[in-house]
Amino acid sequence: MVKDLHHLLSEESKGRKPSPLKSAFKYYGQDDLVFLGGGLPMSDYFPWEKIVAYSPAPPFTGAAGIAEKPSETGKSTVTELYKEQVEKFDVPLARSLQYGYTAGQPELLDFLKKHTEIIHHPPYPEWDTIVSIGNTESWDSTLRTFCNPGDTILVEEYTFSSAIETARALSVNFAPVHMDDKGLIPEELEKLLKNWDSSVKPFPKLLYSISTGQNPTGSSLSNERRKQIYDIACKYDFVIIEDEPYYFLQMGEYNKNVEAKDIPTPTHEEFLNSLVKSFLSMDVEGRVVRLDSCSKVLAPGTRLGWIVAQKDLLERYVRLHEVSIQTSSGFTQSLIAGLLGRWGQDGYIDWLIGLRKEYTIKRDFTTRCLEKYMPSLVKYDPPVAGMFFTVIIDAAKHPEFATKYDSDPIKVEDAVYHRALKAGCLMIPGSWFRSPNFEGSSSTFFFRGTYAAVDLKQLDIGLERFGKAIKEEFGVTN
Amino acid sequence: MVKDLHHLLSEESKGRKPSPLKSAFKYYGQDDLVFLGGGLPMSDYFPWEKIVAYSPAPPFTGAAGIAEKPSETGKSTVTELYKEQVEKFDVPLARSLQYGYTAGQPELLDFLKKHTEIIHHPPYPEWDTIVSIGNTESWDSTLRTFCNPGDTILVEEYTFSSAIETARALSVNFAPVHMDDKGLIPEELEKLLKNWDSSVKPFPKLLYSISTGQNPTGSSLSNERRKQIYDIACKYDFVIIEDEPYYFLQMGEYNKNVEAKDIPTPTHEEFLNSLVKSFLSMDVEGRVVRLDSCSKVLAPGTRLGWIVAQKDLLERYVRLHEVSIQTSSGFTQSLIAGLLGRWGQDGYIDWLIGLRKEYTIKRDFTTRCLEKYMPSLVKYDPPVAGMFFTVIIDAAKHPEFATKYDSDPIKVEDAVYHRALKAGCLMIPGSWFRSPNFEGSSSTFFFRGTYAAVDLKQLDIGLERFGKAIKEEFGVTN
Repeated sequence: MVKDLHHLLSEESKGRKPSPLKSAFKYYGQDDLVFLGGGLPMSDYFPWEKIVAYSPAPPFTGAAGIAEKPSETGKSTVTELYKEQVEKFDVPLARSLQYGYTAGQPELLDFLKKHTEIIHHPPYPEWDTIVSIGNTESWDSTLRTFCNPGDTILVEEYTFSSAIETARALSVNFAPVHMDDKGLIPEELEKLLKNWDSSVKPFPKLLYSISTGQNPTGSSLSNERRKQIYDIACKYDFVIIEDEPYYFLQMGEYNKNVEAKDIPTPTHEEFLNSLVKSFLSMDVEGRVVRLDSCSKVLAPGTRLGWIVAQKDLLERYVRLHEVSIQTSSGFTQSLIAGLLGRWGQDGYIDWLIGLRKEYTIKRDFTTRCLEKYMPSLVKYDPPVAGMFFTVIIDAAKHPEFATKYDSDPIKVEDAVYHRALKAGCLMIPGSWFRSPNFEGSSSTFFFRGTYAAVDLKQLDIGLERFGKAIKEEFGVTN
Repeated sequence: MVKDLHHLLSEESKGRKPSPLKSAFKYYGQDDLVFLGGGLPMSDYFPWEKIVAYSPAPPFTGAAGIAEKPSETGKSTVTELYKEQVEKFDVPLARSLQYGYTAGQPELLDFLKKHTEIIHHPPYPEWDTIVSIGNTESWDSTLRTFCNPGDTILVEEYTFSSAIETARALSVNFAPVHMDDKGLIPEELEKLLKNWDSSVKPFPKLLYSISTGQNPTGSSLSNERRKQIYDIACKYDFVIIEDEPYYFLQMGEYNKNVEAKDIPTPTHEEFLNSLVKSFLSMDVEGRVVRLDSCSKVLAPGTRLGWIVAQKDLLERYVRLHEVSIQTSSGFTQSLIAGLLGRWGQDGYIDWLIGLRKEYTIKRDFTTRCLEKYMPSLVKYDPPVAGMFFTVIIDAAKHPEFATKYDSDPIKVEDAVYHRALKAGCLMIPGSWFRSPNFEGSSSTFFFRGTYAAVDLKQLDIGLERFGKAIKEEFGVTN
């Protein structure tokens, strides 16, 4: 049964009144009404008559994954857009370039909702989808929808620093939850909440989790942990914000003995069954807000994301969007609805399978580089999802840990960072991702690397340099 | 001399720290550095190889203005975009669809800065430009940059209701400034500030003004008033936010005896000289933040605007954008830079001249309809700029004003609204645009109409119906 969660809304969100102008706009387009109510320029004069986009065509399921380019297959998906609607899945330019449709253009929402249904089967009927302009904005709007200054949010103790900055500027309190190499630990979450003293800090309203291919640790929550965390959310009445840009980059366990390119292409059914369960897929109470994004599966500059949640909550987001971003760019909505419409749900799943293949190849290559170049004092655990890998180092193994570095692992981390940078490889120190109020006393530190941004040759060169820098810093040869 | 305005910033904005990740990103793209720092997908796999857009071609300066379509002139401006850069003014898709460039893509900013220079000649050197996703977002970000909850802003006493909603949700106090048919009255502004009691409400930090073709009154501030208001801003130390989406729709005075299509096309110099002076053009202290938008000059769904202000202030906006919207859509930036680059500054000015012509034709037609259909108790003053016209009615002239309507003009306004709606014409009641804390005791009310959204035939039908509704309500025939 879907829960009424209005008691968790921010004062800002509760105070947002419906505009009287909206009551007039419901008459817009009504037969035989001359509507002189809104400052809408006539679409006749939008200076784009036609837009044509050339994209690769499915299937993308060959050995090279999405690396099979149109020039190689000889096929293209051609999206032709006009002011008028031609294909039923297209958003005509006269509409996408006009005001209106804050929640998103119907054709695009239709595709995204069907996609959500196929992937997550949300188990309650009152869910819906709206567009956003990417997960950074979705998160900012989420904070404005739920949190008053001084409110508390639960976060993974290491998390995306930009998400922290978004929240910090809104004067939110952070309650970091301990993690291990498999991500957030449900027992630690429950312990924190059980012992919560609401006279010191308000009880947390929401948990922010990058559950799959976590940034920065690369960890992914198992189905079991997700179920435990969801049950805790129901018991303690908070909302789960699942920020899932990396969800489809689920490469599975690393297998030393198999070359990624030799892994047989799965059927759609096999692919769907292999995906980890989202919080949304177990959300019987409507207390999950899922943030999805085109940034990692199509391109970041699309500035298109979508939010899935119960209708009543999404209505509050739409009221906020009306007076902030309005909606995603019309070019973006027309071009993406056009491409996805032409690919179809099946073609898009082919794309996602091809994308996963691409990342599996890179994850595996990276792991082999780590095996080759890292000294034995470095630990690493090949990620099962996402763009990030970590190398973990125990600062106590440094011969000058107590002397030169005052037994402070962060000082050793900093030394490694600068030594590697000088050697020509940049990886990000893990401590940069610590949540405010972080509590930890381990002597280990880690670096976050990515295999997303560079080709295999660069990965090899970079990791060789990084390994060398560590060896030099620690005075070891192996 | 440009002033340091940091004392006017909000706590949120002052508290925004530079991200440590940014310090790493400065190394991105450096020669011989393998950058494993950022989760940037490779542009090779963005599924858009080529985008081609067909637009009308300059000149647009014929009798029909921008209504001269490519199909009529036989000419098109064709924008071809690729992942790589071909033309120097194009933003290549590999870059626009990637992360980065929060302030906007350099080629687009370059065009917008030159345009700003041509139109406004900002009189201090430290000004700059960043992109936004439209003026609604620019205004939201402006409020977050300057205002703490409880801070005061000055607004025109009738103003865009959505702008009010944006501010209201952030718990801002409103100080409405009295207006007449020429807009905000400088003497009233000064009186308000001179008598301000800061022990009751914080002294205003900013003035929000839609200075040209004001929404909803259609009024435009004269050069003289603007100069007076600017001097008051310097004297009382507040920031002027000029929200100017209608700036280029400056039709000039209505001339009963001339058909708009017969007005000779001005030279670029004549056109530029005919434009009202912006606050930016007189801003010697760097205390104007100008919000510009593509919404009314190209298309609303582009979701592209730009902000002009002193560099130090814009830096605060960029920090906010990094953790909220990131930047405008890459499709938008590539398509608009591509179109404007091909048109050139001159071609774009041709477009603006053509656009003004189009609106002049519609403003004049509307005025003739008002002359024809409105009973004599209705007053109207043809707007010199913008999309909106008003019809002003004295409720005291209603035979049942004191009896049926309790001498309340708003009740008469409401009766006219519903009667016109029933007759098949929707115009917006002026009282819907009253600022919070509005003080007024006149018996007159007004309606806001627009000539933007419909064609001439519809305008004629609608205004005939509206006139008839007023006549019926007031029991007059003329």
